Amino acid sequence: MIRPAYRTLDPAGIRAFLAAQPALAERLGGSRADWRVREVSDGNLNNVFLIDGPAGGVCFKQSLPHVRVDPDWKMPLDRTTFEAAYLRAVRPHVSDLTTELLHFDPDLFALVVESLDGHVVLRHGLMQGGDWPEAAAAIGRFVARATFPTSPLALPFEQASALLAPFARNHTLTRITVDLVLTDPYHAHPRNHWLSPELDATVADLRADPAVRRRAGHMQARFLTCRQALLHGDLHTGSIMVAAHDTRVIDGEFALPGPIGFDCGLFVGNLLMHLFATPTPEGRTRALRDIAQFWTHFRRDFITLWTDAVTRGRSGDAYAAPLFRDDPASLRQVQDQFLADIEADTIAFAALEIIRRLTGYAHVADFDALPDRTVRAARQQAVLRLARDLLADPTHIPTIAALSALAAARVA
Amino acid sequence: MIRPAYRTLDPAGIRAFLAAQPALAERLGGSRADWRVREVSDGNLNNVFLIDGPAGGVCFKQSLPHVRVDPDWKMPLDRTTFEAAYLRAVRPHVSDLTTELLHFDPDLFALVVESLDGHVVLRHGLMQGGDWPEAAAAIGRFVARATFPTSPLALPFEQASALLAPFARNHTLTRITVDLVLTDPYHAHPRNHWLSPELDATVADLRADPAVRRRAGHMQARFLTCRQALLHGDLHTGSIMVAAHDTRVIDGEFALPGPIGFDCGLFVGNLLMHLFATPTPEGRTRALRDIAQFWTHFRRDFITLWTDAVTRGRSGDAYAAPLFRDDPASLRQVQDQFLADIEADTIAFAALEIIRRLTGYAHVADFDALPDRTVRAARQQAVLRLARDLLADPTHIPTIAALSALAAARVA
Ligand SMILES: Nc1ncnc2c1ncn2[C@@H]1O[C@H](COP(=O)(O)OP(=O)(O)OP(=O)(O)O)[C@@H](O)[C@H]1O
Ligand SMILES: Nc1ncnc2c1ncn2[C@@H]1O[C@H](COP(=O)(O)OP(=O)(O)OP(=O)(O)O)[C@@H](O)[C@H]1O
Ligand SMILES: [Mg+2]
Ligand SMILES: [Mg+2]
Repeated sequence: MIRPAYRTLDPAGIRAFLAAQPALAERLGGSRADWRVREVSDGNLNNVFLIDGPAGGVCFKQSLPHVRVDPDWKMPLDRTTFEAAYLRAVRPHVSDLTTELLHFDPDLFALVVESLDGHVVLRHGLMQGGDWPEAAAAIGRFVARATFPTSPLALPFEQASALLAPFARNHTLTRITVDLVLTDPYHAHPRNHWLSPELDATVADLRADPAVRRRAGHMQARFLTCRQALLHGDLHTGSIMVAAHDTRVIDGEFALPGPIGFDCGLFVGNLLMHLFATPTPEGRTRALRDIAQFWTHFRRDFITLWTDAVTRGRSGDAYAAPLFRDDPASLRQVQDQFLADIEADTIAFAALEIIRRLTGYAHVADFDALPDRTVRAARQQAVLRLARDLLADPTHIPTIAALSALAAARVA
Repeated sequence: MIRPAYRTLDPAGIRAFLAAQPALAERLGGSRADWRVREVSDGNLNNVFLIDGPAGGVCFKQSLPHVRVDPDWKMPLDRTTFEAAYLRAVRPHVSDLTTELLHFDPDLFALVVESLDGHVVLRHGLMQGGDWPEAAAAIGRFVARATFPTSPLALPFEQASALLAPFARNHTLTRITVDLVLTDPYHAHPRNHWLSPELDATVADLRADPAVRRRAGHMQARFLTCRQALLHGDLHTGSIMVAAHDTRVIDGEFALPGPIGFDCGLFVGNLLMHLFATPTPEGRTRALRDIAQFWTHFRRDFITLWTDAVTRGRSGDAYAAPLFRDDPASLRQVQDQFLADIEADTIAFAALEIIRRLTGYAHVADFDALPDRTVRAARQQAVLRLARDLLADPTHIPTIAALSALAAARVA
C-alpha cells in the first residue's frame, strides 16, 4: 500500500526535497545548484544517495515499494521508519558509533542522516586488504551500549516493554530474517543457491544432518521468543562504515526486540567468512584478532554497564538491584552465566549466518577475493563445515575463544 | 484515572445494568425484581457478584479504582479489560475449561461471565478435604491448550506478535507479580510478613542464601524476557473452580506473554503448599497424585498439539514445519528439550510461589487447616526449605517426578 504522497525521488526530486528543509539546506550550504548528488545504493533494498554542498554533506535514504534489486518482489515502505526509530532509541547511548538522524519524512519514507563520506564499508575495506584495528572493539562497545540500556536489566519492565513494543511490529524485515536466515537454507527452496556443483555434496550433507536442523529449529525459537533487548538486526560487515579512528553502524532498518547474541552472531559470522575468504596470512591474523577484540570489548562493556547500574541502585527489574547490590560475588556469577548464554547464542547465530550467506538467497562478496574457483570452493566448504560442526555439537565449542582456536586450525 | 462514566455498581446498580442488556436479562429470565444478587468477592482486587434469575445465572465482576482489601492502594481500572481479552484469546482452544464471556463494558470495567454456581473454588474444596480426581489433569490440558496455540510454535510470528502485544501492556498486574512474587520476598520490604517468631530463622536463612537470590534474579529475567506464549498469569488453586466432572479456570486478569513454566509453576507451587498443609495421609496422597497428573497431561497434550501441527505442515515459525515434517525422531528430540526447559522453569517458579505465599504480602489459606501453631510452623518450615533447596541447586531436582519424590519424603 503506497500512501498518496509517496513517490520515489530522483536526484532532482532529492535536491528539491532538501532545499525545502532549511536546516538541511543550511548544512549543505550554497544553493541547490551547487549540490552534487551521487547514488551509492549497493544493498538489496533501498535507494541511497550522498549529497555534497559547499558547507557539508548528508546521506538520503528512501524505501522503495519493492526490493531494489528485484522490482517484482513487492515490499511495504515502512523500513526507513524503523531505521529512524532505531536511531532515536540508541543514539543517546552510542552517539559516537552511529549516524546522526537529521530528518525523517513519514510520507516519503525518506531518511536523512549525516554523510560518512570519508568512510568505507567495512566489508569492502577488508576485501581490499585494509586494516582497522579499532573497529571490532568499537562494534563490541556498540552492541553492549545499544542492548544493555534497552533491556529489562537496565529499565523497569514497563519502560523496556514500551520501548521494544513498536519494533515488534517490524514484520516485513523480520519475515526476511525468519525465512532467509533461519529457515530456507535448511530445506529445498527455490531462493537457495550455492557454488554448484563444487559445493553440492557439502550442502547435501548439511541438509541431511538432523542435529543441524534441530539446532536451527532451536535458534528459530530463541530468535522469536527471547526478547532481551533492542537489536540492530542486520549487523554484518556491510552495515558498518569505518575511517582511521572512527567506526559507525548504519542501516538499522531490521531493528527488533530479540536475543543479544543475534547481533553478536551476525558480526562474528561475517568475520569468520572473511577469515576463510581472505587470501593472505596477515588478513587471517587480523580476522582472528577482530573476533577476539569484539567479544572482549562487548563482554567487558556489557558487564561494566550492568555493575554500574546495580551499584547505583538503578538497574531494571531483571536481576533487581535489591538482590545484588550488597553481594558483588553473586552479581559477578549471574553476569558470567548471562554472558555465557549470549556467547552460546552468538556461536549458533554466527553459524546460521555463514550457512545462509553461502547457500541461501543473499550471498556475501568476500569470497570474490578468491578468483580461482577451486580455491573458492575449498574455502567455502571449510567454513560451511565449521558452521555445521558448531550447530551439530554446541557443547564441543562453548566459547568464542574455542571457536577462534578451531577456526584458526581449520583455515591454516 | 477514572473515566467520567465509571462508577462502582452496588446491587441495585448491577440489577439495572443487567436489565439494560437484553441478552443478559433474557438469560436470567423473569424481571429484575425476581433476581437474587449475592456478593462473592473473596479476592484482593475486585468486586464479584452472582446474580440468579428464574431462567439462569451470571457472574458480574467489576474493577475498583483501588485494591479491594486496601482502599489506600490505588490501582488503574483496566484489569477486567485484560481478563475479557484473555477469555477472547483462549476460549476457542479451551471452551470447556473456562467461562463464557457474556458481556464486557469498557466504561464501567465490568465483566459478565457465566455463573459457576454449583462449583467450589479448588483451594477451598481441597482445604475441606474434598477430592476432584479429574481437576489436575484438566488444568494440564488447559495450560497446554491455552499456551501452544498462542505461541510461535503454532503461529506465524506476525500473528503471535499481534496476539501477544496487547497483553504486554498489562503493566499494573505484571508490576504486582514482579514486585510481590519475584522481588520483595528476597530483601527486607515492609509488605513482607510471616508466622513470626516461629519462622524468623528460616526466613533469615533463605534471605542469606546467595544461591537463592541468584536463582530468583535469573527467574526475574526469564519472566520478563522469555515470551513463549500467552499466559494466564495467576493460575493458583484460587483461580480454579470445580464440580464433580467439570473444571474451570477463572480470573485471567493477570494475562501476559511469558514463559509457559510460569503458569505451570504457580499451579504446582500451590499443590505443594496444599501437600504440606493438608492434615491427612489421604490428602497428601491426592496432592502428589495431582502434581503428577497435571504434569503428565500438560506434557502429553502440548506435544500432541505440536506434533499434529507439524504433521499437517501448519506449525509456526519456531521449529518450522519444513525442518521437521519428515523427521519425527528429531521432532521428538526438540520437543523433549523444549519440555525439559519448561519443567525447569516450572520447578523454579513453583519454589518462588511457595516463598512469596509464606513470607511475602499475600498468603494462602491452606495452612489455616492446621489450628496448632507449632504444627503449622513446622509444615511451613518444611515446604519453605523444600523451596529453598529447589532454587539453590536446580540441577539436583531436574524433573517434576524427582520433585514429587523429594516432597513425599519431606512431608512424611
Ligand atoms: N551515512 C552514510 N554515509 C555514506 N555512505 C552511506 C551512508 N549510509 C549508507 N551509505 C552507503 O550506501 C550503501 C547502502 O546503504 P544501506 O546499507 O543503508 O542500504 P540498504 O538498501 O539498506 O542495504 P542492504 O541491502 O544492505 O539492507 C552503503 O553500503 C554505503 O556504501
Ligand atoms: N464465574 C463464576 N461463577 C461463580 N463464582 C465465581 C465466578 N467467578 C468468580 N467467582 C467467585 O468470586 C470469587 C472472586 O473471583 P475472582 O478470583 O475472579 O476475583 P479477584 O478479585 O480477581 O480475586 P483475586 O484477588 O484472587 O485476584 C472467586 O473466588 C469465586 O468464589
Ligand atoms: Mg539495509
Ligand atoms: Mg484476580
